[in-house]
Amino acid sequence: MNDICQFNEALEKNAANYVPLSPLSFIRRTAAVYPDRTALIYNDECYSWQQTYSRCCKLASLLTHFGISKGDTVAVILPNIPAMYEAHFGVPMVGAVLNAINTRLDPEAVAFILDHSRSRVLLVDPEFTDVVEKALARLKGPAPKVINVSDPSQGAERWIGDLEYEALLADQPEMVDWQLPSDEWDAIALGYTSGTTGNPKGVVTHHRGAYLNAVSNVLSWSLPSKVVYLWTLPMFHCNGWCFPWTLAAIGGTNVCLRRVDPQQILNLFSKHHVTHYCGAPIVHTMIADAAVAAPEPIEHKVSGLIAGAAPPASVLKRMETLGFELTHVYGLTETYGPASVCAKQDDWVQRSQDERIKLNGRQGVAYPLQESMAVLDLVTMEPVPADGETVGEIMFRGNIVMKGYLRNEPATQEAFAGGWFHSGDLAVMEPDGYVKIRDRLKDVIISGGENISSLEVEEILLRHEDVELAAVVAMADAKWGEVPAAFVQLRPGSELSEAALISFCRENISRFKVPKKIIFGPLPTTPTGKIQKFQLRQQLGAIPQD
Amino acid sequence: MNDICQFNEALEKNAANYVPLSPLSFIRRTAAVYPDRTALIYNDECYSWQQTYSRCCKLASLLTHFGISKGDTVAVILPNIPAMYEAHFGVPMVGAVLNAINTRLDPEAVAFILDHSRSRVLLVDPEFTDVVEKALARLKGPAPKVINVSDPSQGAERWIGDLEYEALLADQPEMVDWQLPSDEWDAIALGYTSGTTGNPKGVVTHHRGAYLNAVSNVLSWSLPSKVVYLWTLPMFHCNGWCFPWTLAAIGGTNVCLRRVDPQQILNLFSKHHVTHYCGAPIVHTMIADAAVAAPEPIEHKVSGLIAGAAPPASVLKRMETLGFELTHVYGLTETYGPASVCAKQDDWVQRSQDERIKLNGRQGVAYPLQESMAVLDLVTMEPVPADGETVGEIMFRGNIVMKGYLRNEPATQEAFAGGWFHSGDLAVMEPDGYVKIRDRLKDVIISGGENISSLEVEEILLRHEDVELAAVVAMADAKWGEVPAAFVQLRPGSELSEAALISFCRENISRFKVPKKIIFGPLPTTPTGKIQKFQLRQQLGAIPQD
Repeated sequence: MNDICQFNEALEKNAANYVPLSPLSFIRRTAAVYPDRTALIYNDECYSWQQTYSRCCKLASLLTHFGISKGDTVAVILPNIPAMYEAHFGVPMVGAVLNAINTRLDPEAVAFILDHSRSRVLLVDPEFTDVVEKALARLKGPAPKVINVSDPSQGAERWIGDLEYEALLADQPEMVDWQLPSDEWDAIALGYTSGTTGNPKGVVTHHRGAYLNAVSNVLSWSLPSKVVYLWTLPMFHCNGWCFPWTLAAIGGTNVCLRRVDPQQILNLFSKHHVTHYCGAPIVHTMIADAAVAAPEPIEHKVSGLIAGAAPPASVLKRMETLGFELTHVYGLTETYGPASVCAKQDDWVQRSQDERIKLNGRQGVAYPLQESMAVLDLVTMEPVPADGETVGEIMFRGNIVMKGYLRNEPATQEAFAGGWFHSGDLAVMEPDGYVKIRDRLKDVIISGGENISSLEVEEILLRHEDVELAAVVAMADAKWGEVPAAFVQLRPGSELSEAALISFCRENISRFKVPKKIIFGPLPTTPTGKIQKFQLRQQLGAIPQD
Repeated sequence: MNDICQFNEALEKNAANYVPLSPLSFIRRTAAVYPDRTALIYNDECYSWQQTYSRCCKLASLLTHFGISKGDTVAVILPNIPAMYEAHFGVPMVGAVLNAINTRLDPEAVAFILDHSRSRVLLVDPEFTDVVEKALARLKGPAPKVINVSDPSQGAERWIGDLEYEALLADQPEMVDWQLPSDEWDAIALGYTSGTTGNPKGVVTHHRGAYLNAVSNVLSWSLPSKVVYLWTLPMFHCNGWCFPWTLAAIGGTNVCLRRVDPQQILNLFSKHHVTHYCGAPIVHTMIADAAVAAPEPIEHKVSGLIAGAAPPASVLKRMETLGFELTHVYGLTETYGPASVCAKQDDWVQRSQDERIKLNGRQGVAYPLQESMAVLDLVTMEPVPADGETVGEIMFRGNIVMKGYLRNEPATQEAFAGGWFHSGDLAVMEPDGYVKIRDRLKDVIISGGENISSLEVEEILLRHEDVELAAVVAMADAKWGEVPAAFVQLRPGSELSEAALISFCRENISRFKVPKKIIFGPLPTTPTGKIQKFQLRQQLGAIPQD
């Protein structure tokens, strides 16, 4: 090791050559370079990048006016409307941390989050006034100042207090001297995971990671500058996978959407020539159903990212047939959303559709700017062989991994044990180096000593054309310890029987994996389309066992 | 400022959530994700990404074998051949710093650089054996170990010593345990600027900046994954503007090129379906000339980046007419190559060609991941008004700015004075926020107290259809102090006279800006196509003045 000093001597960081990475730089540049391009569309509202930037700067002033500064938490309970987008910039502009709360949580969960996050200001859409009022009544700590974000298009509204976002913004000057964070490791957002047991954990993310994953989205999807992006994915979900910042980086157009209404989505596709959108499998299924029923096909190419532990083959197939280009991504709140992508290989287009769908449905490889994705043995932490058989846990390492859980050191240490972030998902490494999920650690069914992947059984059920949604959970069994039980939501009009579906399963998987019981009915899903298995387990506990 | 602690408490960096930014991560990922895709083509050689990565890992082993480790300098004098590409990865893999030397320098300059950089190993292409031998004879410090990179396609060779790259590589194992830098601020490369006075300065760049500008190239040019990139730009020039790392980031294909031969370039365009290339204006002119003369047009779309202080309108126009899509970028060795881009606005396509060419020929706006580009008053350091009239100096700020000059603290401090990097180029800010260069600070001609931009006069000369190259410098004048003198290289076959060209100038610019003397003949250019004005000034000094 010679001369190392010569490359570090009098060559320090200074104001000219070092700037902390922050996605706030993106909106400043885009507002300057493309001031007149359309940034945001919501119903009949339309804002240019210059206007959007100006509104974010006004929000920053407003927050300062309310005493918010570095390290404070600002919470929002908002659908994908302009205020939600603006909060992704205006809040960090004053050094505060954005806590975007899932709009479908119950008052108790909202109260816990507001308390735990120490939120000092809360932006609320009147659609959620009831829940928020109840949550505020349950708070243990000081109540945040509530700002109502009025939406006249939604009819009569009931507010909490009398502060209104648009009116307050109108009175504010633009904050022109907002600062980038002094350290790129400073927190930018806080997102609570929907833990199935115990209290939710607050995932703290930083400016550096938000910057890098925003760019990683561009690289992964080869996004051109003139994207028109439809907000089918909730921005409260891992900050919309960092796409608010991605759109600012490339100067694309955001089309806002209050709720996932497939008919409206189709209308917006053609009205605004939408080119890209993201969502859980259920969102794509709804779009596919609506597209099939629509009188006219979509004329232009639309690309979608599909998340979820394992996108059902049926969805991928239907969307491909309709001309959509879907790419599967996988990640967690702890990884800023997508941290892996099923990168398409050049020769896959020549494969049969079934084969291609199978290849495209895997969790794939590390996201472009994520350092590593590995499947490691749970005990030895060594990589499992790439044999498509040996199960290990998916782990990540890199800059697109959270700082940790807020005020929860034990959980943080557990998550980072051994220098890797533990996803909690079990998977195999296929011979081509692509990761394929087997199951959530906690969803594995252990039957007579054999592991049964609930996902594998669900995939078989979903192959039946009458099955719309399926979830498989462990059912206690005197003889086997556990056996699989299935909850199935049928397509409208189907009269499929339990016996017929069990017989279908028997033709397709090993006998011991076939569900011993099938319960038909609508399945409870989270706002992001994940089936709430813990509810099904509770329901199963209440059903008399054979 | 409340609760700042809660977002920093027990939320430190660790192996799972923090990795230094380095472009080495790109090649590791691409070799894993696209192992069989073509990475490099050179004549009949063709390497996949897996092979290229393997060769880089062998080079790392070889360097370790020769005692190279962290902080050492490895120099190369190579054209754009595979070994040059591999050096951009193999050298930093062992923590060493790549010193890519301009292949057109004379022995004295090469000797200065080898001494000053303390290079310990030198890779040489036998095309440059003569120069390197003479340089080695002049060294003041210890001589580097020389490795000859044999190229059988070039016929008889004379080596320096008996070490040969390919043979050495064949004996090496792949280094599998190479490490990312421990600090992203560690140096990755050293590039000597072709200073016109005094000794060249060694620009030190770091892993973080190389990573960010490699990605910035993707954002700026909306590069898709399957790019076929032709190496018309020397990799010794600001490390090929970071494109070696860009291609690794997206998994594109590099087509190597020993020298800029327009006929061969056209052949490669069609043979490999080249989609992208970069170069100085002269490179594009040569391609345009060859394309016009070619029997068949290029069938597919080709995009080029054109550098240089001010690309002549004539080149932009001819290339557009031929169907090429050119984008102008501007930068310096100190900014890793391009640090600004003339980002195209949506409505420019509707303008007249002349107007569009004029708009496209400006230095534009900050590169996507560069923080700021400004035109500041030389004295007050305040931004000049965006009036297209007031002249200031172009300055940059951001992560795409060098660490500083190697062992040259005074020059480093001067370059970063006031917290901005001083480019030395004079410019105006146009009303739309786009920067337009007026001149190099040192090239301004001061005539009777009036500033004359040498670039402005050159642009007029270049509008004449017989003029191929033009350079205007100051000539001493008893009455005016200085007056403009022009050196002009005519197109083959032209018989344009001095009087006719002066008369042409009079029709187009103010009288005091018209050259008082025109000297015809071939112009000396640097390897990157810049006209060497200091040589012209010397030549002018030797011509008897009127």
